[in-house]
Amino acid sequence: MKKNKINFKEKFTKFGDFWSPKVVAEMNDYQFKLAKVKGEFTWHTHEDTDEVFLVINGELTIQFRDEKVSLKKGEMYVVPKGIEHKPHAEKECQIMLVEPRGVVNTGSKRGKLTAPNDIWI
Amino acid sequence: MKKNKINFKEKFTKFGDFWSPKVVAEMNDYQFKLAKVKGEFTWHTHEDTDEVFLVINGELTIQFRDEKVSLKKGEMYVVPKGIEHKPHAEKECQIMLVEPRGVVNTGSKRGKLTAPNDIWI
Repeated sequence: MKKNKINFKEKFTKFGDFWSPKVVAEMNDYQFKLAKVKGEFTWHTHEDTDEVFLVINGELTIQFRDEKVSLKKGEMYVVPKGIEHKPHAEKECQIMLVEPRGVVNTGSKRGKLTAPNDIWI
Repeated sequence: MKKNKINFKEKFTKFGDFWSPKVVAEMNDYQFKLAKVKGEFTWHTHEDTDEVFLVINGELTIQFRDEKVSLKKGEMYVVPKGIEHKPHAEKECQIMLVEPRGVVNTGSKRGKLTAPNDIWI
């Protein structure tokens, strides 16, 4: 068995594009993805799954229709399935996402921010 | 909707026992658990699921029958299902585990290190 640990700092050196999650690990049928984010994302919903946001560096705000949640390094939040949300970050922020394999970053909405899926680094 | 973010540092102030994971979040039927670990755990196997170890503070070694993996802060590892492993930490270490709801910390082996399951903090 090949035993590759995942080092977040090292993985974040491997890409530079924003809002385009890269897979670093799989657990059963779930994927752990790293992303760099900056600016505004798009309102979207994942109809079939919850979605975990974990901030590794920086600060991320997740806007909901009724309020917002701001996350700093060392904080996480679970966006429940079916809840519309829009992440944004004033400055570059490094995050980890956890969600089932196959989840598209823009959820049920496709557009210019829709990233290629299942890209491993 | 109540929007509670999870702050790891704050959660780690809420308990002190070693090798007894506390649930901090659920995503679908998966749980995110925090644990403080120190010393040797027991050899065990999870026959039905992979298990994620993520080190938040300190250093954790996961011993396998053929080799070992040492993880520091900011590193994670996915132990594949069915693979026997024994975590240990020389000094106190803070980790996050991700696994399906219902997974017992000692896997298929029950003993004095078997912790109560589904304890939320």
